[in-house]
Amino acid sequence: VSCIPPPARVGDLVAEVDTPALLLDLEAFEANVALVHGRVLGAGLRLRAHGKAHKCPAIGRRQVEAGAVGLCCQKVGEAEAFVADGIRDVLVSNVIVGAGKAVRLAALAERARVGVCVDSLLQVDQLGSAARAAGTTLEVLIEVDVGGRRCGVVEPTETVALASCIASYAPALRLRGLQAYHGPAQHLRTPEARREAIASAARIAAAHRDALLAAGFTCEEITGGGTGSYPHELGTGLWTEIQAGSYALMDRDYIANQPDAEVRLPAQALEVLCTVITARPAHFVLDAGLKALSTDSGLPAAAEPGWRVRGLSDEHAVLLPEEGARHPVVGEKIRLLPSHCDPTVNLHDWIVAHRNGRVEAVWPISARGALF
Amino acid sequence: VSCIPPPARVGDLVAEVDTPALLLDLEAFEANVALVHGRVLGAGLRLRAHGKAHKCPAIGRRQVEAGAVGLCCQKVGEAEAFVADGIRDVLVSNVIVGAGKAVRLAALAERARVGVCVDSLLQVDQLGSAARAAGTTLEVLIEVDVGGRRCGVVEPTETVALASCIASYAPALRLRGLQAYHGPAQHLRTPEARREAIASAARIAAAHRDALLAAGFTCEEITGGGTGSYPHELGTGLWTEIQAGSYALMDRDYIANQPDAEVRLPAQALEVLCTVITARPAHFVLDAGLKALSTDSGLPAAAEPGWRVRGLSDEHAVLLPEEGARHPVVGEKIRLLPSHCDPTVNLHDWIVAHRNGRVEAVWPISARGALF
Repeated sequence: VSCIPPPARVGDLVAEVDTPALLLDLEAFEANVALVHGRVLGAGLRLRAHGKAHKCPAIGRRQVEAGAVGLCCQKVGEAEAFVADGIRDVLVSNVIVGAGKAVRLAALAERARVGVCVDSLLQVDQLGSAARAAGTTLEVLIEVDVGGRRCGVVEPTETVALASCIASYAPALRLRGLQAYHGPAQHLRTPEARREAIASAARIAAAHRDALLAAGFTCEEITGGGTGSYPHELGTGLWTEIQAGSYALMDRDYIANQPDAEVRLPAQALEVLCTVITARPAHFVLDAGLKALSTDSGLPAAAEPGWRVRGLSDEHAVLLPEEGARHPVVGEKIRLLPSHCDPTVNLHDWIVAHRNGRVEAVWPISARGALF
Repeated sequence: VSCIPPPARVGDLVAEVDTPALLLDLEAFEANVALVHGRVLGAGLRLRAHGKAHKCPAIGRRQVEAGAVGLCCQKVGEAEAFVADGIRDVLVSNVIVGAGKAVRLAALAERARVGVCVDSLLQVDQLGSAARAAGTTLEVLIEVDVGGRRCGVVEPTETVALASCIASYAPALRLRGLQAYHGPAQHLRTPEARREAIASAARIAAAHRDALLAAGFTCEEITGGGTGSYPHELGTGLWTEIQAGSYALMDRDYIANQPDAEVRLPAQALEVLCTVITARPAHFVLDAGLKALSTDSGLPAAAEPGWRVRGLSDEHAVLLPEEGARHPVVGEKIRLLPSHCDPTVNLHDWIVAHRNGRVEAVWPISARGALF
């Protein structure tokens, strides 16, 4: 439980919530889960909901109840927070370096099914040594660079070399398959651009899978995909598991994507509730700035039309009413729509889940700040 | 104490610190304190160190030991965290709206000298009612917009009206003076531009002070200034208190200022320690992204020359070695220099203070996430 007190109590009116606070519209969230889970599960794939988007075990449990096979996350500390709160299948969909981190992950495998990615031999050695010492099994996915130019191996020969090293640590390590996530494809604006990027990713992933099979290894899982691209991964017949995360909360940057013809975009379920602290003739100021909203993907927007966000400073947002728009008064509570959910959620310790104007739950963001 | 475990223990080598982690170079920090405190106190002004930069009571106590009259901060929760850890004089250098926040601030005044800013009658009424009910005294500063076009009154008649309202709540409220902080002036790059901005701010603040005096009120304090502009506030004879904060840690954005001829810039004492998790021929990847470093003031830079930061995503930084630069290996630890200290510190629960390559202290960032 967080050291920061919650900004609301169950049963409060949303208007009574202390500010700034992260709001989750439960009806939008539930519709988003129904939409994306229905689509992915309907296509016969597994959905592994990405917990890095919300960092909140209560949300993760609802995703598992709605058919997700488990959660993925990016940090060992996030995996620990999810397992501590009842998630029994976690994948660290990221390469992990550090003997201490490997030891923690190996220990976690006593309490849950734990997967992790690798793209170099050092990682395999650290994970294998730790799991061997702990007497547990870590399931390993070889991360392939399918277009992100970030982590991941490039040559199929590297994948085979890693698989051999993983096999040498059996039963402490077990090769599950490939991590094939194309990050930049998520934010390509047109369906055509996303389709092309995922088709290219599929060709690359298939080459690595074929190299594994040709060398006598298995490849039971190819995991990847995200909120922007998942309709395209579904159609390739290659991926077995989709890692979408942002679909649950959504943000302005994903809403800016042109939807695929056959698939609706999820709706923005995440807002930041703010209070007007200063009202001048030409602008007004809210009590939420860079410490409550991320700006890496652009400024947030006001939920109510007619107000433009001039800018954010550490603790303030300054808004300009357009001509003819109403001018709010000091003390009024208004809502901002985050441009990027993941780093915005990471700034808050609590998320206030509401329905019909009332607070239904206040959930700790238990994996917030789990940087290592 | 935070729920996130600390990334290091006292006595560890810096190279053993888990990553990503916030590092404080104690020698640079101490030199920065000596430089700025010496300059401000030497000019006969008070220094009120801005705690929003570091959010860390252990750093705040060292600033008070080095002559600061107390701390300022921007949120009631930050003030509570500082008072809980032994700071006895805090100023919320921001306007506060909300009956619940006013009640908490009034309660805090039982344990410390507490100041707060106002720029509207609603705030005065909320603070006055709360302090009256609590039987405490809050010291009030009227915030004047001296150039930031954010919070603050504009007309001297507004200042007089607020002073009258504050007086009506005596002894629960006591007028201390004016808050006159020029935010944009801090980051003007040339000394001439900063001098001009502060000269303009001084003219505005003087008009408000004169209106108070003419109406029979006192104005014992004019507080403001920051790391970028403080040499200029010192010279005006108007300000009584300087609110610099970033000077303690510093960041790339402040280092980009051209120094004033007669005053050295403080040195960058804050770094983020990262681990290389992937190394490819043309790039390498660190385990620190948007959840460990803010980018509102630009990308961080590598402390070691020859490496350019290509970009940050949620959990990763991708760096490019320039021609001739060395290529680091997986597992190597390297340092990034944050572009903006305040929101970067706010992403971490601990700060690792080091000297001569060893961890000397690991301090909780107790006011992190104190959003309301």
